[in-house]
Amino acid sequence: MTLQALLDALAPVGRDPATGGYRRFAWTRENAELVAWFTGECSARGLDVVTDRVGNLWGWWGDPDASPGLVLGSHLDSVPHGGAYDGPLGVVSAFAALDLLRDGGFAPRRPVGVAVFRDEEGARFGVACAGSRLLTGALPAATALGLRDADGVTMASAMAAAGHDPRRVGPDEEALRRIGTYVELHVEQGLGLVDAGAAVGVGSGIWPHGRWRLELRGRADHAGTTRLADRDDPMLALAQAIQVARAAATAHGALATVGKVRVAPGAVNAIPSSVTAWLDARGAEAPAVRAVVAAVSGAAGCAAVEESWSGPVSFDAALVRRLAAVVGGVSDADVGAFGDSGAAGGSGAAGGSGGREVSAAFAAAGGPAPVLATGAGHDAGILAAAGVPAGMLFVRNPTGVSHSPAEHAEPADCLAGVAALARVVRELA
Amino acid sequence: MTLQALLDALAPVGRDPATGGYRRFAWTRENAELVAWFTGECSARGLDVVTDRVGNLWGWWGDPDASPGLVLGSHLDSVPHGGAYDGPLGVVSAFAALDLLRDGGFAPRRPVGVAVFRDEEGARFGVACAGSRLLTGALPAATALGLRDADGVTMASAMAAAGHDPRRVGPDEEALRRIGTYVELHVEQGLGLVDAGAAVGVGSGIWPHGRWRLELRGRADHAGTTRLADRDDPMLALAQAIQVARAAATAHGALATVGKVRVAPGAVNAIPSSVTAWLDARGAEAPAVRAVVAAVSGAAGCAAVEESWSGPVSFDAALVRRLAAVVGGVSDADVGAFGDSGAAGGSGAAGGSGGREVSAAFAAAGGPAPVLATGAGHDAGILAAAGVPAGMLFVRNPTGVSHSPAEHAEPADCLAGVAALARVVRELA
Repeated sequence: MTLQALLDALAPVGRDPATGGYRRFAWTRENAELVAWFTGECSARGLDVVTDRVGNLWGWWGDPDASPGLVLGSHLDSVPHGGAYDGPLGVVSAFAALDLLRDGGFAPRRPVGVAVFRDEEGARFGVACAGSRLLTGALPAATALGLRDADGVTMASAMAAAGHDPRRVGPDEEALRRIGTYVELHVEQGLGLVDAGAAVGVGSGIWPHGRWRLELRGRADHAGTTRLADRDDPMLALAQAIQVARAAATAHGALATVGKVRVAPGAVNAIPSSVTAWLDARGAEAPAVRAVVAAVSGAAGCAAVEESWSGPVSFDAALVRRLAAVVGGVSDADVGAFGDSGAAGGSGAAGGSGGREVSAAFAAAGGPAPVLATGAGHDAGILAAAGVPAGMLFVRNPTGVSHSPAEHAEPADCLAGVAALARVVRELA
Repeated sequence: MTLQALLDALAPVGRDPATGGYRRFAWTRENAELVAWFTGECSARGLDVVTDRVGNLWGWWGDPDASPGLVLGSHLDSVPHGGAYDGPLGVVSAFAALDLLRDGGFAPRRPVGVAVFRDEEGARFGVACAGSRLLTGALPAATALGLRDADGVTMASAMAAAGHDPRRVGPDEEALRRIGTYVELHVEQGLGLVDAGAAVGVGSGIWPHGRWRLELRGRADHAGTTRLADRDDPMLALAQAIQVARAAATAHGALATVGKVRVAPGAVNAIPSSVTAWLDARGAEAPAVRAVVAAVSGAAGCAAVEESWSGPVSFDAALVRRLAAVVGGVSDADVGAFGDSGAAGGSGAAGGSGGREVSAAFAAAGGPAPVLATGAGHDAGILAAAGVPAGMLFVRNPTGVSHSPAEHAEPADCLAGVAALARVVRELA
């Protein structure tokens, strides 16, 4: 099946027809539709579908217990009002790559899997990469199952309603043991490949990043009768926090974003009793990120409650070199010629965004693919942090825009991604 | 029935047991419970209940078509997470005052009514005093019926679901003609009566006030991969708007509040595509209010869309003098001794809040009750603006806190309010 046909099949699921934005939250009806699509595509290809303890899905070509396999994949859930590519592109590209190889008569020497991780965006329960974190044990099951969505529904209830037994949830050694190598293809979420002039690049690592919650307290009161001097209005602290987040991020060469706010009681004519704001902060170096969080907490006059933290991740250096060589079209025999500079090309560069700190030298014609770090978390980063050899391929994003209906990748670049993934399978499996 | 028994009967309806806050929005199940309570209390007293075209309720003692009547009352709906007194105190006090008078053998010379106006807070559809505005024609029926709540439900649908035919909605001349005088008792929402040392005061008028919507536009993007320089983040404009609202209100001696904010898409890891913020602004003088709105609009870099505007209201001067005299315990014959200074005592004072600009001279023992203006809108103000002789009594609020579960009035002060209302009925009916 063509890549476009695969993408088209997913296009209507969870799509707001008015805006084109997607709403595909974990353990929802939309999510179930996507899972049904995935299992159908696996069946059509003769892949055996296994659901792990967490609910992540694995479609296996070959016996996954014969030897550790090469796993491709990504996730199918979205942020609210998200784009069509973030997640699904990695899954459909994996299917398309396998189709390409099988049409060419390729038979793998080791098992090949296509994975779908659950709840990568954390849009519903607030913890990103929940599926992979639960799988590796980085997120305790009891913590995750008690998380509540905006309607107060726990993750445990949502899972049960979707037919997955929450009592099964926990680290899954068997599922992990089957992953010899994980390679996740993802649409780029910055402009690194535009700058490098390449359709496909290789990830070197993931910046340290986290989410913090600020509970700004005030006193609810009548907006029309309470003198300014008598007010304790937490909205003023919110304004301070927003401004300091930007200023501190600039000062420390990091990124900081306030993207979610809840106001209680939320009436036009009531001074708020409280404002809850969430801070997303990332950077090449963990101390810079911590400094930004401390500055915002100070400006807000309240603690910053850490909801998640992911330390810096460097993907396996040998795997990064090999992926760069294979994707760039360099023969396997040449791989030894690259030093560690390739793998480290993107990491440590300040102020970038998974992007311009590309090791541009590698983009030279015939050389290995560009290698870049990213500020976005991915399941591949969670697996790498748990010691699984993992890497990523990025597909060029002409505007750099992501987490938006405007997110886009050109069809030709998507096909280049499929071709790259097919080469990776041919070389690594 | 005692005042406390009446208050106790209402206490559980729409109450969040965890916080004590009320959620009694227009045309909801909770609202229907309150209406059923009201009609039951009317029946128990032999009052004839009439529902006007808008759905406002009128319990009549005597034939309302015999001559224009004296109407007491208030509203039963609440802001989100509101208090127990704002609205209900006026309705239960009216019943208690009638009980007091009837126990004493009083028979009115003209009809006496108890009114409940619908949707005074505007918490669900965004327009305050919707019931009285529709009644007088200040709010066009077509506009109101098309308003949507947070779930997208129109007021027309909500009314129909609650059993009120939306096709009936429109100005109701008959209902208006029956109101000879309207006197609304309300818990004070500032500290004016605390300062004046009085349990009960009389309203002189209502400050000009309004609501404006700010649509701050940006570009949704990934929080972890978009460089600061490449961002168009509307949250920064929100911070500006909040700070300028406070600064401009201070500069102009007015009040400004941002109490409601919506962020789209509202994900922790997405730069918002838009932020919608609502501004509530009030002041003794309309130009000051307009100046605040203009400053906030300028800081936000977008238009301030006016959702509602209520010009300044002065209650009928003769009625204010008479109420002050009757409530203060001055005999009717003495009323002529007060000049216009009584009625004007509270209006025009800058920076106050329905409060400290009390005409303290009137609080002297044996003199008329304190007279004060308020920054809060009330149905009495809507009726006054439409030419109906209307006035208000306020009951002391020890903390000044309102629109909060902490809103309170001492039982003794509530009983003083009932006594005052009973005297008003005896003198005016």
